[in-house]
Amino acid sequence: MSNIADILASFELDASWLRRLYEHMHANPELSMHEEETYQLIVRELEAFDCEIVAPIGKYGICAVFENGAGPTVLYRADFDGLPVTERTGAPFASRKVVTTADGDTVGTMHACGHDIHTAALLGLCSVLDNTRDKWSGTFIALFQPGEEIAAGAQDMADNGLADKVPTPDVVLGLHVMSGRAGEVMSKPGPQFAACDSIRVHIPGRGAHGSMPHNSVDPTFTAAMIIARLQAIVGREVNPADFAVVTVGSMSAGKAINIIPNEAELVLNCRFYSDKVKARVYAAIERVVHAEVAASGASGKATIGYFAHGELLDNDAAIYSAVRENFDAIFGPESTTSDPKTVSEDFPIIGQAFGAPYFFWLIGCTPRDVWDRAVEEDRVAEDVPVNHMANFLPEYEPTIDAATRSAAVAALTYLAR
Amino acid sequence: MSNIADILASFELDASWLRRLYEHMHANPELSMHEEETYQLIVRELEAFDCEIVAPIGKYGICAVFENGAGPTVLYRADFDGLPVTERTGAPFASRKVVTTADGDTVGTMHACGHDIHTAALLGLCSVLDNTRDKWSGTFIALFQPGEEIAAGAQDMADNGLADKVPTPDVVLGLHVMSGRAGEVMSKPGPQFAACDSIRVHIPGRGAHGSMPHNSVDPTFTAAMIIARLQAIVGREVNPADFAVVTVGSMSAGKAINIIPNEAELVLNCRFYSDKVKARVYAAIERVVHAEVAASGASGKATIGYFAHGELLDNDAAIYSAVRENFDAIFGPESTTSDPKTVSEDFPIIGQAFGAPYFFWLIGCTPRDVWDRAVEEDRVAEDVPVNHMANFLPEYEPTIDAATRSAAVAALTYLAR
Amino acid sequence: MSNIADILASFELDASWLRRLYEHMHANPELSMHEEETYQLIVRELEAFDCEIVAPIGKYGICAVFENGAGPTVLYRADFDGLPVTERTGAPFASRKVVTTADGDTVGTMHACGHDIHTAALLGLCSVLDNTRDKWSGTFIALFQPGEEIAAGAQDMADNGLADKVPTPDVVLGLHVMSGRAGEVMSKPGPQFAACDSIRVHIPGRGAHGSMPHNSVDPTFTAAMIIARLQAIVGREVNPADFAVVTVGSMSAGKAINIIPNEAELVLNCRFYSDKVKARVYAAIERVVHAEVAASGASGKATIGYFAHGELLDNDAAIYSAVRENFDAIFGPESTTSDPKTVSEDFPIIGQAFGAPYFFWLIGCTPRDVWDRAVEEDRVAEDVPVNHMANFLPEYEPTIDAATRSAAVAALTYLAR
Amino acid sequence: MSNIADILASFELDASWLRRLYEHMHANPELSMHEEETYQLIVRELEAFDCEIVAPIGKYGICAVFENGAGPTVLYRADFDGLPVTERTGAPFASRKVVTTADGDTVGTMHACGHDIHTAALLGLCSVLDNTRDKWSGTFIALFQPGEEIAAGAQDMADNGLADKVPTPDVVLGLHVMSGRAGEVMSKPGPQFAACDSIRVHIPGRGAHGSMPHNSVDPTFTAAMIIARLQAIVGREVNPADFAVVTVGSMSAGKAINIIPNEAELVLNCRFYSDKVKARVYAAIERVVHAEVAASGASGKATIGYFAHGELLDNDAAIYSAVRENFDAIFGPESTTSDPKTVSEDFPIIGQAFGAPYFFWLIGCTPRDVWDRAVEEDRVAEDVPVNHMANFLPEYEPTIDAATRSAAVAALTYLAR
Repeated sequence: MSNIADILASFELDASWLRRLYEHMHANPELSMHEEETYQLIVRELEAFDCEIVAPIGKYGICAVFENGAGPTVLYRADFDGLPVTERTGAPFASRKVVTTADGDTVGTMHACGHDIHTAALLGLCSVLDNTRDKWSGTFIALFQPGEEIAAGAQDMADNGLADKVPTPDVVLGLHVMSGRAGEVMSKPGPQFAACDSIRVHIPGRGAHGSMPHNSVDPTFTAAMIIARLQAIVGREVNPADFAVVTVGSMSAGKAINIIPNEAELVLNCRFYSDKVKARVYAAIERVVHAEVAASGASGKATIGYFAHGELLDNDAAIYSAVRENFDAIFGPESTTSDPKTVSEDFPIIGQAFGAPYFFWLIGCTPRDVWDRAVEEDRVAEDVPVNHMANFLPEYEPTIDAATRSAAVAALTYLAR
Repeated sequence: MSNIADILASFELDASWLRRLYEHMHANPELSMHEEETYQLIVRELEAFDCEIVAPIGKYGICAVFENGAGPTVLYRADFDGLPVTERTGAPFASRKVVTTADGDTVGTMHACGHDIHTAALLGLCSVLDNTRDKWSGTFIALFQPGEEIAAGAQDMADNGLADKVPTPDVVLGLHVMSGRAGEVMSKPGPQFAACDSIRVHIPGRGAHGSMPHNSVDPTFTAAMIIARLQAIVGREVNPADFAVVTVGSMSAGKAINIIPNEAELVLNCRFYSDKVKARVYAAIERVVHAEVAASGASGKATIGYFAHGELLDNDAAIYSAVRENFDAIFGPESTTSDPKTVSEDFPIIGQAFGAPYFFWLIGCTPRDVWDRAVEEDRVAEDVPVNHMANFLPEYEPTIDAATRSAAVAALTYLAR
Repeated sequence: MSNIADILASFELDASWLRRLYEHMHANPELSMHEEETYQLIVRELEAFDCEIVAPIGKYGICAVFENGAGPTVLYRADFDGLPVTERTGAPFASRKVVTTADGDTVGTMHACGHDIHTAALLGLCSVLDNTRDKWSGTFIALFQPGEEIAAGAQDMADNGLADKVPTPDVVLGLHVMSGRAGEVMSKPGPQFAACDSIRVHIPGRGAHGSMPHNSVDPTFTAAMIIARLQAIVGREVNPADFAVVTVGSMSAGKAINIIPNEAELVLNCRFYSDKVKARVYAAIERVVHAEVAASGASGKATIGYFAHGELLDNDAAIYSAVRENFDAIFGPESTTSDPKTVSEDFPIIGQAFGAPYFFWLIGCTPRDVWDRAVEEDRVAEDVPVNHMANFLPEYEPTIDAATRSAAVAALTYLAR
Repeated sequence: MSNIADILASFELDASWLRRLYEHMHANPELSMHEEETYQLIVRELEAFDCEIVAPIGKYGICAVFENGAGPTVLYRADFDGLPVTERTGAPFASRKVVTTADGDTVGTMHACGHDIHTAALLGLCSVLDNTRDKWSGTFIALFQPGEEIAAGAQDMADNGLADKVPTPDVVLGLHVMSGRAGEVMSKPGPQFAACDSIRVHIPGRGAHGSMPHNSVDPTFTAAMIIARLQAIVGREVNPADFAVVTVGSMSAGKAINIIPNEAELVLNCRFYSDKVKARVYAAIERVVHAEVAASGASGKATIGYFAHGELLDNDAAIYSAVRENFDAIFGPESTTSDPKTVSEDFPIIGQAFGAPYFFWLIGCTPRDVWDRAVEEDRVAEDVPVNHMANFLPEYEPTIDAATRSAAVAALTYLAR
């Protein structure tokens, strides 16, 4: 352990370089799978290091392979896409970029989920490792991933030869900034982020004039019964000790005011910390939907389509134990145990592409004064900006410091001589 | 027509005899299919007439056949059972009889549905016809039926050879006293009383400890969904111009406080004026029940049992036309058009036993002062006692008069020379 | 009566003129409240008659006043707007017109509801009356109304001085072509078309991330409960002998796939034959909506807005009796009794504008061979095109004949010398 | 620690005495709050020890106070009531006792929840402590409680002066045998057993004849809507990371087949591991019930009564830490971490009566061969008898041994010199 502390102490990162990088990325966010300029920026920065750049993998995926003798292979992943949110942080480097959506609307773009921190921290880690080669041995792979927000980028890299283009890692690492006291390093074994899917349910009926219900099979009533039953799946079919969420994200049927519609549509969103629970709930949803359509007497059959899939992020227990011991040693009381979070990530797909175990942790980024006051006043839920909000802005110094150093600690847990 | 008026004018009924009969029956009501004494009373009275008494048919059914030369055969039916209601009419001849029920409770008995009037009126009609044989020809059958209140008596007579024991009638007639201005003769073609069934729905589930819903299939939730859907059958699957009622008369599940029950039971009661609508609704109920059990994931199958059947009382259009013309002539403005009523009768079974068309009408029996005041104050629903209530008591004079005379008019429509 | 038959026999309409008029209108339908050319056509045709043209009343309303000495004043109304339906009748004079809707879509336009027949018949009636002035006396007002399909035209005329600009009629008349054997004249007293309203229900909730339902008040569940309860209003709160329809024409909530929506919207459509039943149902809907919002724990309040109002079309009994007698005399077995129809009309607003009683009847227009075959095969519901369908096309000869002549019979019931 | 091992090693319990005691109790179970003979048996056994017997406290509560110099006061509780279950274990000492219930039914009685083991173990512990007085100092209170199964006994003792009659303990201890490998000692900090309440919900309506729903307010529909909404409380209002169960244990309404009932009743059973979650759910249940009654238009108000209350059993973290360390030392791998259980206990009321912290653990009692085979075949849920089942029988030797010794370890954690 003292080795890792020594390595960290032996090299001082160029803080102004890192800050410039971050602020540039923050001011120039690009939407998922359209990160052309960020891609070029990262490649350009990587060219300064003694590494092999493998890019693009898929549309904009990048790997930088740092070979350094015998030893384990560690892959660390950062994502770099922004969001269609109009920034309201008031930062001098706030984004002013506007894009036109597929619907023809214009919307601002923003790094509202901290991926700029993630990318800066990984470039920082590259700098650390590139400058301390005598103190570690093995192979380090820096993976920069586009399109995390739409759950597309990891899959795109996996589908385009990721596993063939770089050495197979022994462990896959990554982190996410999140609301929490800036600088806190939060981790846990097992489920950290939820498995998630969206489900489009198309409910058939038979339209008729609104005054002639006996000629119809009213799909709005079928939809209502399905909505009522979905929560009973949660309340009656899931072990109350397990975690399951079934949300109706949208419902729609009918446009004319005096016509019973032909069909209705529900879009569900479901989350779990267990693939077994997920399987049971999905079976129940399918059973309920088909039976309710039958109960309504529709001649058609419901269609049920799954999309926007998010894998369960289920941290490997052994990596967790090994890294957490070092987190505790380096960060002291700022190394804490995370709760499981209900959001999702496509990070597990990177590990799965290699068949490699993975570990993912969280870095608190809320400005410390805001956080401390909110905690004191019991107003965390009300006062602390969370990811994706227009006023989400990490407190730079403690956040980048904890992100870069925790990334180094985790990688060096395996690579330090 | 003038013939009928002449016949009615030619003979004066013994009013004190009829009243004594009525008051004796009223004071001595007997429950359905236990009408031993009333049966004997009727047979005794019939022995005074020149007729053939065919009795018992089934348990307590009676027919008196008055043959009088060539001509049509007319059957007229009256019922004679009382109800388990403790009388609160204050009449000097009120029932004081008490019986012990199967549950061991004691309850008063009462002619709370006017069957005493029905029987007295038919004995009166027998007297009229027996004393005016020269003015009519054909065959008249006076049928006295037990057990109407439990829908058992007509079936019992039909099952025990009714159709073989008396001549087949050309028309079957009958009437019922009902709230409405005493003396009013109310009739309509087509549906007069509703078809009705009770339906016992047994809903399978799987019991479990109350804290372990994931080990159960909760039949109370299934029951709730079925109850919700039943009204949608009425609101969505029945032509809004048609009449249909689906009522949940009872629901039950579970006894222990902390156990999810194994099963639930609903008892439904349904009413219709059309056998086609009935068929559609019953098919829908069965579809809904089975699909909701499937939606809940129960491995068992629901059972659906029909009982307490009531036939649609659907007046023959031709009899109605012929008799109504005479009602209008004899009763003037007191012959009115009835609404369809939602209650049920086993009267149609008598006609069906012979394959004969039938006609059934209503006689208003509410004391005239009560009725007129209620109408004036728009308080009919609140102030007028209805059948089966403890304070239901026909105003004797106008009611027995209209009942006896309308029965005579209807019979003589076919029998008058 | 023989007078009316004589008048009809005394003048022969110019059938080729009428047919040209009809086919021209049919080929050139205009959408509701955009009937500029049809307006001009009608005014031009009216100029051929000895009448006073009062136009426009409102946007495109027209009255032609035929004064002809002392006597009653009769107003007869025809409507003249088309529909956004792409015609598929295959007629040589089928519409090929296309319009661009507010949404930017293009859609065909079509006289899919027979208003071209209505207008032609009224111009035909004007010709009859203008040419038989010696045989009638009084005042005849031909009223041509735009915008019936969107329930706007009658109100627009009433709001713009209709009652002040023409004499007050003693009776207001009108008719509608409808599926049924072409040439049949169908009428009834009392409710002929339903009262109707659309109701926009805005259901408040509180949005949250889809994985955090405990921070939300889910408006989709509230909507489901309301939908379930609406049919129970029909099944439990309306006298089963009454007519009431509550239809959910559209439901909508949410756009994002993983967000619990802030709010939901239902649009209902309700129909009745009684204003009393309507009042009870609307009170129940409001009670249910507000209570379900409360049950969900929303802090906001639902809003309930009524629109697209249709008055109950409740035929005056006296006009019906007088006219029906003449219909029976002139049309024989082709004068039949109509069922009440569940659709709605803004015709009553014309009568109400004057405080005058009204009568409205139906003319069968289905090609006779189609109708007879459908009846024989019990496939009326499947095989007979109904109003608003793309293949709805009246059989011209019997339909225009029955429409024109029944209009003349009804008007002459009051005006014939 | 070695002290405790030494103390346990220094005295050998009279195993045949203990076994006779157990088998006698097992053969003679008494129902809750009717444990007259068991009470006398315990008192008799206690008389052999050098202790002060304080009894009865309430109906059948017993405390035996062992004073032994300065030091902490430790109270250990065992319960001793049986259940109305007909035993089917096949044991030679199986119960053959039959009782007559309040309903007049007869039912067997059985120690189907292991309270006989609990009581024997505590008498064993008394023997250990009474014979090793030189090795510990302080005060030990053995508390024997009746009526646990109906959540009555602890409250009865608390209400009848428990806290005044014996010294106030520093810690309160207890255990429960449970399915699990016989001899396993399972413990956890915080919530071990659930908080629980039953809730009787009376739903007002307005009865009417089944054919006249418009005169009713149908309470079965209200009940159905409430049942539907209860699961949405679980699925939408509880943080999915929290534990909450809302079960409908019984529902009932109506007896007559053709009457809409006046009222309905639901009995709910709810369980939680957090009083905060409980408060939120109960508020939601009350909100839902009252709003649904309002939605149905009932004029009456629902009543909601809580009963059969079970406190959250929330183990004190400090006692857990101290005792668990010793469990691990003494029992090695047979000291494991328990899951929270969804059942409830009135044990916390003993601690609360004194304002003292408490700790409660579990002892596996399933015969080891049964358990091992079930685990191997993944059939634990199917094959392992659980508490309250007629075939529930602890494997005596390892169970009594672990129960007695773990009780001694826990007590001596505080009392050992």
